[in-house]
Amino acid sequence: MPNLEYIENGGVTSAAGFVAAGVHSGFRKDPKRLDLAIVEAEGPVPAAGVFTQNVFCAAPVTVSRAHLGQDAAGVARAVVINSGVANAATGARGLEDAERMAALTADAVGCAPEDVLVASTGVIGTFLPFAPLDALPALHAAASPAGGADAARAIMTTDTHSKECAVRYTSEAGDYAGATFTVGGMAKGSGMIMPNMATMISVITTDAPVAPRDAKAALKAAADVSFNKVTVDGDTSTNDTCILLASGKAAPAGSAPLQPGTPAFAEFEAALQAVCQNLARQMAADGEGASKLVTVNVRGAATPEEADLAARTVANSPLVKTCIAGHDANWGRVAGALGRSGARFNQEDVDIHFMGMSVCEKGLAVIFDEDEALRRFEEPEIVIDCDLGAGDAATTVWTCDFTHEYISINGDYRS
Amino acid sequence: MPNLEYIENGGVTSAAGFVAAGVHSGFRKDPKRLDLAIVEAEGPVPAAGVFTQNVFCAAPVTVSRAHLGQDAAGVARAVVINSGVANAATGARGLEDAERMAALTADAVGCAPEDVLVASTGVIGTFLPFAPLDALPALHAAASPAGGADAARAIMTTDTHSKECAVRYTSEAGDYAGATFTVGGMAKGSGMIMPNMATMISVITTDAPVAPRDAKAALKAAADVSFNKVTVDGDTSTNDTCILLASGKAAPAGSAPLQPGTPAFAEFEAALQAVCQNLARQMAADGEGASKLVTVNVRGAATPEEADLAARTVANSPLVKTCIAGHDANWGRVAGALGRSGARFNQEDVDIHFMGMSVCEKGLAVIFDEDEALRRFEEPEIVIDCDLGAGDAATTVWTCDFTHEYISINGDYRS
Repeated sequence: MPNLEYIENGGVTSAAGFVAAGVHSGFRKDPKRLDLAIVEAEGPVPAAGVFTQNVFCAAPVTVSRAHLGQDAAGVARAVVINSGVANAATGARGLEDAERMAALTADAVGCAPEDVLVASTGVIGTFLPFAPLDALPALHAAASPAGGADAARAIMTTDTHSKECAVRYTSEAGDYAGATFTVGGMAKGSGMIMPNMATMISVITTDAPVAPRDAKAALKAAADVSFNKVTVDGDTSTNDTCILLASGKAAPAGSAPLQPGTPAFAEFEAALQAVCQNLARQMAADGEGASKLVTVNVRGAATPEEADLAARTVANSPLVKTCIAGHDANWGRVAGALGRSGARFNQEDVDIHFMGMSVCEKGLAVIFDEDEALRRFEEPEIVIDCDLGAGDAATTVWTCDFTHEYISINGDYRS
Repeated sequence: MPNLEYIENGGVTSAAGFVAAGVHSGFRKDPKRLDLAIVEAEGPVPAAGVFTQNVFCAAPVTVSRAHLGQDAAGVARAVVINSGVANAATGARGLEDAERMAALTADAVGCAPEDVLVASTGVIGTFLPFAPLDALPALHAAASPAGGADAARAIMTTDTHSKECAVRYTSEAGDYAGATFTVGGMAKGSGMIMPNMATMISVITTDAPVAPRDAKAALKAAADVSFNKVTVDGDTSTNDTCILLASGKAAPAGSAPLQPGTPAFAEFEAALQAVCQNLARQMAADGEGASKLVTVNVRGAATPEEADLAARTVANSPLVKTCIAGHDANWGRVAGALGRSGARFNQEDVDIHFMGMSVCEKGLAVIFDEDEALRRFEEPEIVIDCDLGAGDAATTVWTCDFTHEYISINGDYRS
């Protein structure tokens, strides 16, 4: 596999053939707050999307699915996103509003409405205001290869910082050998503490040549090991949306789209997964009040489903999160979470490590160096490894710690 | 059904034939903190228990199950409970320690070790200290009909107050007509915010004549609509224990035990359920930092399982809990939780009420009187009613709100 080079300040416009912008349009009261973003290709390009499974599916999700066509794999030219109003639980009028938002964007960009994908994030149950959309022509005019950062800021809600990532690699595979491809993206989403509003919106672009259905398959696979591994409860908000656009701009002259199953496609999948996992980790680390990124690794599970169940239960445990914030290697809380997760194992087979330190072996307490543990708790990322000793399945889930009020209540539980 | 009379300051010793005590023995550092409790009958009486399902099942749970015998339905004379150390994840030594705790209690009480049930609550993964058990003779000596309150205090961990309840009723059924029976109990457990350590321990006594297996069936049925309906995630800690002791002291001379399926048994079941639900509601209301008891009613679900799933998902939603603490009728958060719960319904069939006020009809926002809503949010109990319009199944789940840090982050989300 070729080496992946992370691009400094890279984002959704790092790949060739894309421009973006973010402006304040009025969805937010604060004039300093950007609230409308656009990502554009030079023309219709292969596009794919993965969306929320929530029954209260938001209008823009329904519209973007429809515009992408069957299996949410088709073509698109632009993605327009507003923050502040989710246009969710808004019924038939919400659908009309989302279509109108796409049409107004199409007018500004100069394309067909079906080539525009829309996303919204914010409060549920209120209708989309339209005055802010008067800013669409200016938004389109402002779109540039340097606009990725503003676009990433404009889609933030409770995020404390914008989330961008881009990687570059030079292919070593067949017809594409020597070609340098870029995959970059932006995302919003935080709130491990507010799971069912933790809307995740991400737009990822690449200049690799990928056909719509193959882009969909690659995006689904990457999301399953990244965004879908950020706790909570396999949560999906009403508006979760992840879009991939592929311009093919970096393809060698006359080359065909990457073929699934080939080394060249595997290179692309690795780059896409790296970007998605980087963005997912940024989301987990940005949970409100979070001071740490928490990575939970579970191995030795009987099945992949049980590995996921066990890792999520630990990652979702308020007690585990509070003891981490309290720098307390209280592994009993991890054991309690594993034990109620539904994963099958025997407690006398369980090993638990905190930041590489063994704290529980064969289900029993291990005497460890508390001072060394305190030192390791200073790290910005806390890693918990659990081996259930029940099989070969493994997984990784990301979350954050719980701080403040939680600490005063639970952090000193052992004293 | 006869009228249930709630007994003022009633508890685990309200029923005839039981004494209790609570003392400071040294499991806790603070000498003012009671940490060892006992509930005794005058001799072995019918007893039944329901216990945690956690794989990391604590030693005292294993021992109490064994002492009760098959199906955890047998006889017992005393229940001894310590707080501070859970004796969980302690392996073979933990089992020996729990048996030794039972034997030492049997010596003090003057009964067989198998007639003693043990329960522990506190930190996981540390061994039980034995010096505190030197207090057992004094604990037994202190046991009296007036000792219920001290016993209830001694089993507290993060509880902010002790939890007791007792009801009395005069039977109207057949041979028992005119006999007055009492059902009373104590419980500990709080921490909607610390689910997987929210050990629930409850001891319930009655002077009604009930055979072991019938006591078990009645206890299981009552727990399923009370303790098991207190959020979170169908959570069971490593130590959850609920014991029912039946002295039969109030049975009319020569009467047989209550027979399942008879009006007399139904009277008893109703009283037992009332006590369990009262204690369960006290637990939910005592979540750390909680300012409100939150009751979530779901009806119109396709199946009882889906009703439970929907109600639990709403009750477990940090966002719903924070908007309640913030006095914000943000029904979109309830809709989002229902939508991701896994319950089957169509969003255009959903109605939601906050404290009797319609806020969502047929999946759409209802304009409501915000001032009136704010007034109703002043109530100590907040009731959320959800009708999924998908069937006839219904359930009720109890939880609490989230306050403080949560509020500063989420409470003002809409502004």
